[in-house]
Amino acid sequence: MDAKYLEDRERLIAEDRALRIDTLALAQATDIEKRAEDIVRQIRADENERVWGPNAPELPGAQHIFPGMAFLTGSESFLAKETILKTKMFEIVSKMPKGGVLHVHLDATVDATTLLRIGLKYPAIHVRAPQRVTASSMLSTFPEFAPLPKSSWTSVASLTGPDYEPGTWVPLKSAMDVFDATLGGPEGFFKWACTGMTINPSEAYGTHNTTDKIWKRFGKTFEIQRGFTRYLPIWKDFVLALFRHAVSDGISYIEARVPFFFKYMFGEDGNETVPHREWLIAYDQVLAEFKEELVAQGRAEEWVGSKVIYSMRRTVTPEELEWFLEDCIALKREFPHLICGFDLVGHEDPLQPLIYYIDPLRRFVERQKEEGLDIPFIFHAGETLGDGLPADMNLYDAILLGTKRIGHGFSLVKHPKIMQVCREREILIEVCPISNEVLPDDPGMFGYMGVSFDFFQVLVASNVNGIITMRELAKDGLRFSCLEPEEKARALALYDKQWDAFVDWIVKTRAECA
Amino acid sequence: MDAKYLEDRERLIAEDRALRIDTLALAQATDIEKRAEDIVRQIRADENERVWGPNAPELPGAQHIFPGMAFLTGSESFLAKETILKTKMFEIVSKMPKGGVLHVHLDATVDATTLLRIGLKYPAIHVRAPQRVTASSMLSTFPEFAPLPKSSWTSVASLTGPDYEPGTWVPLKSAMDVFDATLGGPEGFFKWACTGMTINPSEAYGTHNTTDKIWKRFGKTFEIQRGFTRYLPIWKDFVLALFRHAVSDGISYIEARVPFFFKYMFGEDGNETVPHREWLIAYDQVLAEFKEELVAQGRAEEWVGSKVIYSMRRTVTPEELEWFLEDCIALKREFPHLICGFDLVGHEDPLQPLIYYIDPLRRFVERQKEEGLDIPFIFHAGETLGDGLPADMNLYDAILLGTKRIGHGFSLVKHPKIMQVCREREILIEVCPISNEVLPDDPGMFGYMGVSFDFFQVLVASNVNGIITMRELAKDGLRFSCLEPEEKARALALYDKQWDAFVDWIVKTRAECA
Repeated sequence: MDAKYLEDRERLIAEDRALRIDTLALAQATDIEKRAEDIVRQIRADENERVWGPNAPELPGAQHIFPGMAFLTGSESFLAKETILKTKMFEIVSKMPKGGVLHVHLDATVDATTLLRIGLKYPAIHVRAPQRVTASSMLSTFPEFAPLPKSSWTSVASLTGPDYEPGTWVPLKSAMDVFDATLGGPEGFFKWACTGMTINPSEAYGTHNTTDKIWKRFGKTFEIQRGFTRYLPIWKDFVLALFRHAVSDGISYIEARVPFFFKYMFGEDGNETVPHREWLIAYDQVLAEFKEELVAQGRAEEWVGSKVIYSMRRTVTPEELEWFLEDCIALKREFPHLICGFDLVGHEDPLQPLIYYIDPLRRFVERQKEEGLDIPFIFHAGETLGDGLPADMNLYDAILLGTKRIGHGFSLVKHPKIMQVCREREILIEVCPISNEVLPDDPGMFGYMGVSFDFFQVLVASNVNGIITMRELAKDGLRFSCLEPEEKARALALYDKQWDAFVDWIVKTRAECA
Repeated sequence: MDAKYLEDRERLIAEDRALRIDTLALAQATDIEKRAEDIVRQIRADENERVWGPNAPELPGAQHIFPGMAFLTGSESFLAKETILKTKMFEIVSKMPKGGVLHVHLDATVDATTLLRIGLKYPAIHVRAPQRVTASSMLSTFPEFAPLPKSSWTSVASLTGPDYEPGTWVPLKSAMDVFDATLGGPEGFFKWACTGMTINPSEAYGTHNTTDKIWKRFGKTFEIQRGFTRYLPIWKDFVLALFRHAVSDGISYIEARVPFFFKYMFGEDGNETVPHREWLIAYDQVLAEFKEELVAQGRAEEWVGSKVIYSMRRTVTPEELEWFLEDCIALKREFPHLICGFDLVGHEDPLQPLIYYIDPLRRFVERQKEEGLDIPFIFHAGETLGDGLPADMNLYDAILLGTKRIGHGFSLVKHPKIMQVCREREILIEVCPISNEVLPDDPGMFGYMGVSFDFFQVLVASNVNGIITMRELAKDGLRFSCLEPEEKARALALYDKQWDAFVDWIVKTRAECA
């Protein structure tokens, strides 16, 4: 083959790849990083053939096998996930430091299993069903959970007994303990309760395979789990569980979108009386408790912290929104270290577009100037398949309103000018690989926590990306965060330390796997 | 709402839209064009709600309803197609002049029904099955068709009779006429034969839902229909049928990829002895015959003509390829008005990449210079979900080899530098909307002909695109063609005339539908 042609080819490839995010990092890679990169590439090549290749054993019930295959694939259970869990690549990705997570909805960070286990600790939590739960009604009946004030606690024992009155509250633990043996007993209850709070493969790819339908089902999962997540004691527990899992997953920082659409949470006493500021007091308490825990374990260095993006739903009126924007300003004044941004959430296609809220949103910018505050917009926008429809047009308004980042932005590819503006202004696009296969940013609903599965999918689905690319993605989660400059510097320094240990671990222990 | 904000918004939208292909055309639109555009937009808005909206009646067996929904959707039959056929938008799109079609595989332009009807005219065509066709074997048995020399003609009457010897040839007409009544009789035979040559929805979305599997099934459809398409008399008939349908569909010009991988076609006598040059003589004859036909109908102005892209398969060795490249040069010398480009075809993922053929391909460029010929490469490249895998890397080689256009180029989005080069060098990307939902450019295999369905999908799936956008796409099919300058000028002038009549028709007859 002609040497000149190969030279031209190398140059063109290099010019093209220079526009990827890892160019500088690759040029500066140390010897040990290069060795680690090679080892991981060899393991990937081997597993992409052996586990995911066209001649790999078929997953039962799944017809769709390739590296980065749809995460929810499977008929009954999560077969892709179970296969991923057995790979060496997943072990490696799990150990990788992940930096900052910038797009996650707080109440969807914890999976149904974890939530239910926490809920069982609290006698205030009750459950009911619209009809007696039987073998035949079970498949079409969702449970409803709620904390009740002591005066309303019941002694009804079972959802499955012949005398169950539809709609009667039953204490959660009792409902589980005496769940009819023919329906699987306590385990059967657990499974049934989790099902309602999880999107399963047949829903994602079968019965609910339009954006409209899956969003409705998705809304249902939230509705069900709110019986847990709006109870302050559980809220504190699951935020702590989230932080613990995050650190075990290599995450050092989280900017969580917290839904403030309900004005009150349920307090320990089961009454709906806890206002927003007490949520943030609790968030601070959990952060402090978690920090102590890490200090005690000698792991304080692994964690930077967490901030909150104040989120409202695109269902409010502009007038209602004004109250929440003022509320957000008040909270920012009281918790300047916590409140770091503002967003509007919900299915963009049918709900109100940004332009509908333009007056209160612009007034919000003015009000911040008056108050000397900085609460950047961090908008969801363009999370749609449409072209020129209101959800797609949200991209223009997000840009004009000065958004700091863009959530999802699927339809950005149809807007070259907006892509250019994003590059010029360094507006990060928040991408959630697995959730975006079906819907946004809600790992809990897909039966997992953390971001290892997301990094796994991105790493195995490409032959160009390597662990150094993943590092740049992870560090972008810190670079484009709302951390203050000194916090950011500390976070990045911590990351580099974790990274060195990670690379060292690969070279010392994974070389024989390659 | 603030006027300044709205002004800024309009400007940003305008700057963004200025990068779409229809900017100049929209600015220059005449009054009648604007009226026609409005009428079509109103009809679209109405049908997008009434036919495709979330509250539209469900298509039986289909769960996926939205404008531009997957074309093959349906359980048994082509429900999306049948729904489209009933819309006013489809009537309009059908009437629209389509300009040049630049990406279509000749032997996949004609649907199974048409092919079978043509085949029935020729007594040389026989059919056989690997086992007697019965109610139980029918679903898993594909027919095989072939032209036989007279000496091999048989008098076996039926594929379904109790004495059918597996693998015995039966004259096509007879096989159909006496097909067992319990299997549907002649109609049942027709349906069974078509099934083998068509990709159906349950294959596309169910049993064959990986690129690998669908490509194999796709290969099978070709294998079956080659019994017809490699018989010169049928070949001439279906090329004529293609031209006739094209003109009825508003197409004025076709650059067809013709597979030259077989060195000989079967002649009228049923012997495999017809060399490549006789194919092109036949192509010229059909073109002449069709022109006469149009002249007789006073419609000569509706047709510009057709050229041939010499196509080889990515399965040959570089040494074998050399023979075909010289063959291509010889054909170009003899038929300079027909041969207009060279391509390599077949499933890019598992087959050989361009780099494998780099030496003969570069030598081909040199040989053209020696011979004073111009046969541009018009390569398929990047038709893959891969990132950095050989099929994706084909994009680099296509560019370095100076490709005139790129077929599909799915993975282009991962290559900003290549996108930039394509813009600079005006390299057109050949996009086939419906075929690309599942596989390339082969309408016949999806049960349709022409490009009206493709234009329909693009027009209804966007709120920004209008008929003027469609006109620019259609004219690009002429602008980026291999027509000689004077042919191109004539073609574009013809297009404008057709367009004026189309716009006039909309305004005069469709206004009441809006």
